[in-house]
Amino acid sequence: MGFEPAVRLTEQIADHLGTQIITGRLKPQARIQELKVASDLSVSRGSVREALLILESRHLIEIIPRRGAIVSSLEAGQVDDFSELFSELLCQLYVKVAASRSLCFDEFSLSLERMERAVVQDDFDTLVLARRSFIRAGFPILDTFYLSAVLSGLIPADMRLAYVVSRHPDYDMRDTLRYHQALLEAVRGNDDARIRELVHAHSGREKKLVLSLQRSSSARPLVGNFGRAAIAQKAL
Amino acid sequence: MGFEPAVRLTEQIADHLGTQIITGRLKPQARIQELKVASDLSVSRGSVREALLILESRHLIEIIPRRGAIVSSLEAGQVDDFSELFSELLCQLYVKVAASRSLCFDEFSLSLERMERAVVQDDFDTLVLARRSFIRAGFPILDTFYLSAVLSGLIPADMRLAYVVSRHPDYDMRDTLRYHQALLEAVRGNDDARIRELVHAHSGREKKLVLSLQRSSSARPLVGNFGRAAIAQKAL
Repeated sequence: MGFEPAVRLTEQIADHLGTQIITGRLKPQARIQELKVASDLSVSRGSVREALLILESRHLIEIIPRRGAIVSSLEAGQVDDFSELFSELLCQLYVKVAASRSLCFDEFSLSLERMERAVVQDDFDTLVLARRSFIRAGFPILDTFYLSAVLSGLIPADMRLAYVVSRHPDYDMRDTLRYHQALLEAVRGNDDARIRELVHAHSGREKKLVLSLQRSSSARPLVGNFGRAAIAQKAL
Repeated sequence: MGFEPAVRLTEQIADHLGTQIITGRLKPQARIQELKVASDLSVSRGSVREALLILESRHLIEIIPRRGAIVSSLEAGQVDDFSELFSELLCQLYVKVAASRSLCFDEFSLSLERMERAVVQDDFDTLVLARRSFIRAGFPILDTFYLSAVLSGLIPADMRLAYVVSRHPDYDMRDTLRYHQALLEAVRGNDDARIRELVHAHSGREKKLVLSLQRSSSARPLVGNFGRAAIAQKAL
């Protein structure tokens, strides 16, 4: 085909930039310059443009006419909007997995084992990857093209918020593990009400931590940089 | 920036191919050949690749390693999956618009007027565009980055299903108009239960028509081509 090698290069560039955004090395509202990325990574400008389109579909950047690519902001309103949307879609996913009466929970269990090891080793990067594979474990069971595609597109934003949450002093990796353990139990038990309760409670907890960090960061701007509000504050 | 003109060209190519998929001229499972499109439209291969990434984020094609770009299929399972997801997100949108207590419903009203004219003129293409602008009318009222982005990504698939539905002998353009009129009333009245009832009933009706067409098309393959099932049938 001649198509694949370039797709893979493009994916690599998207993953490289995506990781920088997710982990917070690239800040909200930062500009991503096509030519600079191309020269830094020794790749063609066309490949960078394709990577930027992939990052846009992962909701990590916005491509704005006349301004180019900007890292998506993480203002309070957007965190709210994201949490509500993502937790509703996760409920749809897990309720469907539960209803499918699948007996094949191997991928979920493997993700939980990875999380357990990550907690023991205090390895947050691995914890976040295991959290992603836990969600993805539902996709092959259901074969839902649209729900899976939309959730896949939102997972990077979820990982990005997880990194923000991890900077809060009240955050405990064991809470993430316990939540997923309880969730798998609820899915196995086909208990829709419990699934919804767990997903919404977890999302609410994380949102609270992010918003509390944002408040302290606008009081002490050096702690972090969460979007336009923080930038405007600094500009004063 | 030097970025914008190419973005626009890319969007034009994506819109051109997207329209062919939405209106059914490009069939489910059809292969889209990068080189052929580039030569047909006298554009660079790079621009076509970017357009294909945009079409993938609009859920109209799948880019499959070693196979290239394939028009998404429209099998019964996917229609089900899409309807459930899209109608739930529409409910989220309209319930939020209703709760916002916005008094600015001009864009909704304009979309309804376009729909009315389209019905009078029996102009289905315009009806589908007005249906899209009706949904989009909620975005500026809410400024919900994620919900708007996800819905925008799904609207082309909704338009595509609308074209399928329009081929059913029982389809009546006036039903589409009446549904949107009732929906705007429910939004103005901030009546969540009625919004949910209308959205789900409309989605259920359209799904029923699509599935009934698919059944008749697998009995009479010449009527249409709806994905792998139909292709497998023809191959027998």
